[in-house]
Amino acid sequence: MQDLDHANITAAVNATWGDGTDPRLREILEALVRHLHELAREVNLTHAEWQQAIEFLYQVGRKTTRRRNEFILLSDILGVSSLVDMLASRGPDGATERSVLGPFYLPNAPMLPVGGGDMRRDNPGEPVLVRGRVYDASGRGIGGALMEVWQNAANGLYSNQDPDQADDNLRCRLNTATDGAYAFTTIRPVPYSVPTDGPVGGVLRATGRHPWRTAHIHFRVTAPGYDELVTELFPADDPYIDGDAVFGVRASLAVPFRRSDSAELAAAHGLPTPFGVVDYDFGLCPAG
Amino acid sequence: MQDLDHANITAAVNATWGDGTDPRLREILEALVRHLHELAREVNLTHAEWQQAIEFLYQVGRKTTRRRNEFILLSDILGVSSLVDMLASRGPDGATERSVLGPFYLPNAPMLPVGGGDMRRDNPGEPVLVRGRVYDASGRGIGGALMEVWQNAANGLYSNQDPDQADDNLRCRLNTATDGAYAFTTIRPVPYSVPTDGPVGGVLRATGRHPWRTAHIHFRVTAPGYDELVTELFPADDPYIDGDAVFGVRASLAVPFRRSDSAELAAAHGLPTPFGVVDYDFGLCPAG
Repeated sequence: MQDLDHANITAAVNATWGDGTDPRLREILEALVRHLHELAREVNLTHAEWQQAIEFLYQVGRKTTRRRNEFILLSDILGVSSLVDMLASRGPDGATERSVLGPFYLPNAPMLPVGGGDMRRDNPGEPVLVRGRVYDASGRGIGGALMEVWQNAANGLYSNQDPDQADDNLRCRLNTATDGAYAFTTIRPVPYSVPTDGPVGGVLRATGRHPWRTAHIHFRVTAPGYDELVTELFPADDPYIDGDAVFGVRASLAVPFRRSDSAELAAAHGLPTPFGVVDYDFGLCPAG
Repeated sequence: MQDLDHANITAAVNATWGDGTDPRLREILEALVRHLHELAREVNLTHAEWQQAIEFLYQVGRKTTRRRNEFILLSDILGVSSLVDMLASRGPDGATERSVLGPFYLPNAPMLPVGGGDMRRDNPGEPVLVRGRVYDASGRGIGGALMEVWQNAANGLYSNQDPDQADDNLRCRLNTATDGAYAFTTIRPVPYSVPTDGPVGGVLRATGRHPWRTAHIHFRVTAPGYDELVTELFPADDPYIDGDAVFGVRASLAVPFRRSDSAELAAAHGLPTPFGVVDYDFGLCPAG
């Protein structure tokens, strides 16, 4: 009979996946077992620590609902969610980097006119004009791309977290113009805390980590023949630009919110002066 | 500002654990982040696969209660629970290897007379005499050690899974005699399936793995001045001796269930002939 021990158990577990197993599932399970075992061996995990880990996962499961997924939050604060986005971002030169979708996306936001319009409405906060182009690998503008935009209000909350905001507040959709141009008005987003009332909040407290996300505007850009792009833009001067609790910031997505006093631009976009200007072009990858 | 990418994010996450973090917690978190990230990079985990993993954990959480912990079962079938036992088993020569406590332990089982007695009662199944000594590192018997024993019945169920069994059926406690000797009668345990109605059962089916645990008798042995020993004995001729679904079997814990026709021994222990005999000595480690 086989004589299992702490060294050979890894190969023994990975020998049990049957021949009919989907090859990709098998590849992932084999790597999972190898890394879990190596982790336990490396730190010489005790039975009491294993029990604490099981209890922690039990509490994460208890806190999780379809609306509030503590497993995703755990993945976020360990940098796993962002790493997965980064791995998917290794596209051709010129393609915009991806970042997290987050839990606050809603479909069917109000359509603005082709090219852009007013998402700011009467929201308090620093007025901002965001503008640029959506382009392809060759630098050509992509007309008719669908851009979806969502962000939080001055109180730090998204509309679907806040009964005092209209459901569609600070959310919009727009189609790019034939040359790929877009422009919309909004307010500057503000940093906000990830939820800290669950077991993941306990980890942050036990390790002296803050729960703040760098302020950001979410984008989802789709166009026929191109891969979907989900990303975020961050104010380069945000106090948490180097300390996003979920590691969503990339240097290429940190953008200046330039101050403008242009009366002409203000009038064209219905903004008071001064206002912020963000210029950003989004590069899409060909599908597949 | 820092420019996070798929290679440097691991160091960035591990730089966030604060100076006041418990050193052992920090050691474990750093290794956890390193191995989770390495796993994602190695298999080039896609966003869709990450979502499937999150959904799987969500389902594991939903299936888990205080009585039925699907996280423990997941740890079991990935060999992690046994590996942790193995790491704790690296004691001095002569110390008995540890194995899983399992979910069916109950305290306060009936006390048999010093040295042993009848745990078999009127249970159907192959009658067995289990006997031996509890000894220390120098080979001296340990008198007055407390041995707790539990196992399943011929129908594969433990008393706390089966309304048709008395709560204390096939469970006992006994104190060893002054020379460390013990002996009790029972029936041969039978293989049984781990629960397969949850997401972990789905993994077993998707990978062509069977859910059977090798038959076993559970032991917990405690004595003042010695480390607690939790282990199991397995019939060496069990059909699943090389295929325990939770990797609990060690060669040193697989024991012959020898057939005996001894009328003398049968009479001394109130058994019919023929019966099985298991001879096993348990070695304890000095405390600490």
